Amino acid sequence: MSAFNQLKAHAQKISHFNHLAAICGWDQAAVMPAGGNQARSEAMAELSVHLHSLQTQPQLEEWFAQADNENLDGTEQATLRELKRQWQQANLLPESLVQAKSLAGSKCEHAWRTQRGDNDWQGFEKNWAEVVKLSQEEAQIRAEANGLAPYDAMLDIYEPGTSSASLDNIFGQVKTWLPELIDQVIDKQASEPFMTPQGTFNTEKQKALGLEVMKLLQFDFNHGRLDESVHPFCGGVPTDVRITTRYDQSEFVQSLMGIVHETGHARYEQGLPKSLAGLPSGEARSMGIHESQSLFFEMQVGRSEPFIAHLSQLASKHFTDHDSALFSQQNFQKLYTRVKKDFIRVDADELTYPAHVILRYEIERDLINGHIKHTDVPELWDQKMQQYLGLSTEGNFKNGCMQDIHWTDGAFGYFPSYTLGAMYAAQFMASMKQTVDVDSAIQSGDLTPIFTWLSDNIWCKGSLLTTDELVKSATGETLNAQHFQDHLKNRYL
Amino acid sequence: MSAFNQLKAHAQKISHFNHLAAICGWDQAAVMPAGGNQARSEAMAELSVHLHSLQTQPQLEEWFAQADNENLDGTEQATLRELKRQWQQANLLPESLVQAKSLAGSKCEHAWRTQRGDNDWQGFEKNWAEVVKLSQEEAQIRAEANGLAPYDAMLDIYEPGTSSASLDNIFGQVKTWLPELIDQVIDKQASEPFMTPQGTFNTEKQKALGLEVMKLLQFDFNHGRLDESVHPFCGGVPTDVRITTRYDQSEFVQSLMGIVHETGHARYEQGLPKSLAGLPSGEARSMGIHESQSLFFEMQVGRSEPFIAHLSQLASKHFTDHDSALFSQQNFQKLYTRVKKDFIRVDADELTYPAHVILRYEIERDLINGHIKHTDVPELWDQKMQQYLGLSTEGNFKNGCMQDIHWTDGAFGYFPSYTLGAMYAAQFMASMKQTVDVDSAIQSGDLTPIFTWLSDNIWCKGSLLTTDELVKSATGETLNAQHFQDHLKNRYL
Repeated sequence: MSAFNQLKAHAQKISHFNHLAAICGWDQAAVMPAGGNQARSEAMAELSVHLHSLQTQPQLEEWFAQADNENLDGTEQATLRELKRQWQQANLLPESLVQAKSLAGSKCEHAWRTQRGDNDWQGFEKNWAEVVKLSQEEAQIRAEANGLAPYDAMLDIYEPGTSSASLDNIFGQVKTWLPELIDQVIDKQASEPFMTPQGTFNTEKQKALGLEVMKLLQFDFNHGRLDESVHPFCGGVPTDVRITTRYDQSEFVQSLMGIVHETGHARYEQGLPKSLAGLPSGEARSMGIHESQSLFFEMQVGRSEPFIAHLSQLASKHFTDHDSALFSQQNFQKLYTRVKKDFIRVDADELTYPAHVILRYEIERDLINGHIKHTDVPELWDQKMQQYLGLSTEGNFKNGCMQDIHWTDGAFGYFPSYTLGAMYAAQFMASMKQTVDVDSAIQSGDLTPIFTWLSDNIWCKGSLLTTDELVKSATGETLNAQHFQDHLKNRYL
Repeated sequence: MSAFNQLKAHAQKISHFNHLAAICGWDQAAVMPAGGNQARSEAMAELSVHLHSLQTQPQLEEWFAQADNENLDGTEQATLRELKRQWQQANLLPESLVQAKSLAGSKCEHAWRTQRGDNDWQGFEKNWAEVVKLSQEEAQIRAEANGLAPYDAMLDIYEPGTSSASLDNIFGQVKTWLPELIDQVIDKQASEPFMTPQGTFNTEKQKALGLEVMKLLQFDFNHGRLDESVHPFCGGVPTDVRITTRYDQSEFVQSLMGIVHETGHARYEQGLPKSLAGLPSGEARSMGIHESQSLFFEMQVGRSEPFIAHLSQLASKHFTDHDSALFSQQNFQKLYTRVKKDFIRVDADELTYPAHVILRYEIERDLINGHIKHTDVPELWDQKMQQYLGLSTEGNFKNGCMQDIHWTDGAFGYFPSYTLGAMYAAQFMASMKQTVDVDSAIQSGDLTPIFTWLSDNIWCKGSLLTTDELVKSATGETLNAQHFQDHLKNRYL
């Protein structure tokens, strides 16, 4: 067997164990009774150790060296590139650092769960110092191996190929127009009253409505499920994608659009190339591209006028006991496009969301590059929050720098993916509209032309192309934030 | 680390992977969408290969040799005995035979799924010949290793310590009184009319009723769940036991008692000794003892008059749209103790069930010992069916020797466990009644004294004792089928 084929067989083996981890992880989050957690965590930890040992097997080095000299076609070369990338990522860090960071992250996160409620920055900061220190060490090692700046080496985990130079440029542009646009829109919306949900929205009915919307979005129920969990997510494996939502009986708005969002993630997974199943070249391209698909569904399609018309009509069919004015298309459109300056990123609307992300990006970039200390973060947060959204977080740590789980766990470099995703989604839509009559397709209830475009241009490409190549092949240009600005102005002004 | 501690650590590792297999197996049977099956099966096969390689690691031999000379207390000695037993079972057969039998079994079972409906003995027999041949080879290898007759070596997999000599004796006794008892009871019941369920019994209500009955049986919902699957089973792990049932909207009788049965299996698992978690000495003793717990719940407790009173009262509370006469205690008692001679084992009542098992036992014993050919089976089946239940299966293969999945898969030696379980259950109840006022406890709705007895005498013993030792320590004697006969006469005459 050629070295390349040995590498492929080894990747298949790893993917089988990843499959078990994905299903048991879904189970743990969605259906496992609380008392099962200790034994489950031990079993999952054993599996992680086994996966790490597979990813770092000594003979891989020789196989990679040999495979470089083998005669491979284009697809095979892409597979080899991604195999090597995953192998290097897995082998880069010393075991001791991985363990120390995992322990420090767990400790910090565990304490954070109560410290946040107590607004206890002093307590949090003590644990977090260690997480930041170890993350800086990690970034340094990655930087030396890849020839990148420390923070860029962290970005590379989630968004291969993206640099802080390009983010500085893109986010810098956004900062020139976003705060003013937010103010304009808020002014405009002030004179546009709307109804909010009142009363009780039965969980079973919400679920039935959600399933119907998933059907409209052509979720493949032969290869996936909808369940419930405290934190909604998209998990499982491409042949069996598990999305979850959380129902709140006092309203249906969040859960319904949450399902649309997760369905976007799910259809990307379900649409990945079957011929590359189990290989890294057959996996989703990056966190940013993954988010571009969920946000394409949620923001580009989900909040479009013809889709809102479907949602309002379906919701009124399921919730017959409520005031029908709530379900008018006009009211739905307002419900789903309301802009508000607020503290919490995860509750933010489409327009203020980028401000939250840019704030975090600028802080984590300087923190990981060693330009600021972790104790500088609350003050910087307050300054930037005032600058971008006109809100002060002085002394308000729990709604400021202690609100997210990402930094607590040491996942520095992840935040930009959210806004990159939103920008890619806008760019994909602009490009799609050149050949597809998107609004008519949505209006007709048969969204096939939209999904065909996404499948042909994004889903079926897996990781065969780099992110830049993928975006260029789909839209004719690399990331261009102008489409995002156009989209926002068009929708909100 | 001592060799014994090395062995224990290795067993814990194996148990972690078994945990993942149990959860993914449950998922596959209970919630996985059909399209996920191929990739799941491949992932599970990879896990099996990994488990086999862990169970057969070369250094284990040395550890076992060293551990024999280490200073171990009684519990540790029992752990070592069971570790060695599992290791020997895993190492006994050549890989080629395991694979060949697995393939032949899969092929035979796959074809059987349609052949059974077609009553196609000719087609089935061709595939089954290979399964029987390979099972005979397996039995021969096991026999030589253990110094047992071939069939006894197969029995030893499911019911360690049980011999065909003792089964011949016990089942031989049963045959002297069972056929006559069945006739007597059927005569008696002929003049006792009863109502059967009519109309529709909503699945949600059946589920709510089932959950209430599980609560009465003190199922620990912090360490387990109830779900649905085509073939009801008890799976998962002791800290997270997953039982399933199947709802038929045209009646609730089967599903309800099925839940009682699986709850018996589940409480045994939930009650296993926590201090031995992950070790084979902390696992359930045998298939027969496992079945004794499910049948203790289903037959000894579940069909007792005070428990039937609870069931009838709870069912009438949930199904308010039906004729209340259906839910009278008298009618419920008749519904759940009706005796009928019929072809199908899995649908058989408590009284005719042993006849089905003895028939299979006698045939599989002679088949595996090479005293009969697999082509002799249909005729023998017909003869024994006439002898024990007065029914002919001549030409009726699908309701005769083709009805079960066990032989199709090559699981020879399993069937006796069912009736051994029923006998142990009767013996446990007879013994329990010497110190516990069982009927009063059930009547009061607080069954704690019953579960305390089971926990102290069965559950918390895990596999520390052999089956004979366990039964003797719980009841003062080894298996005594007289208790079973007494129980049946007492209930049915």
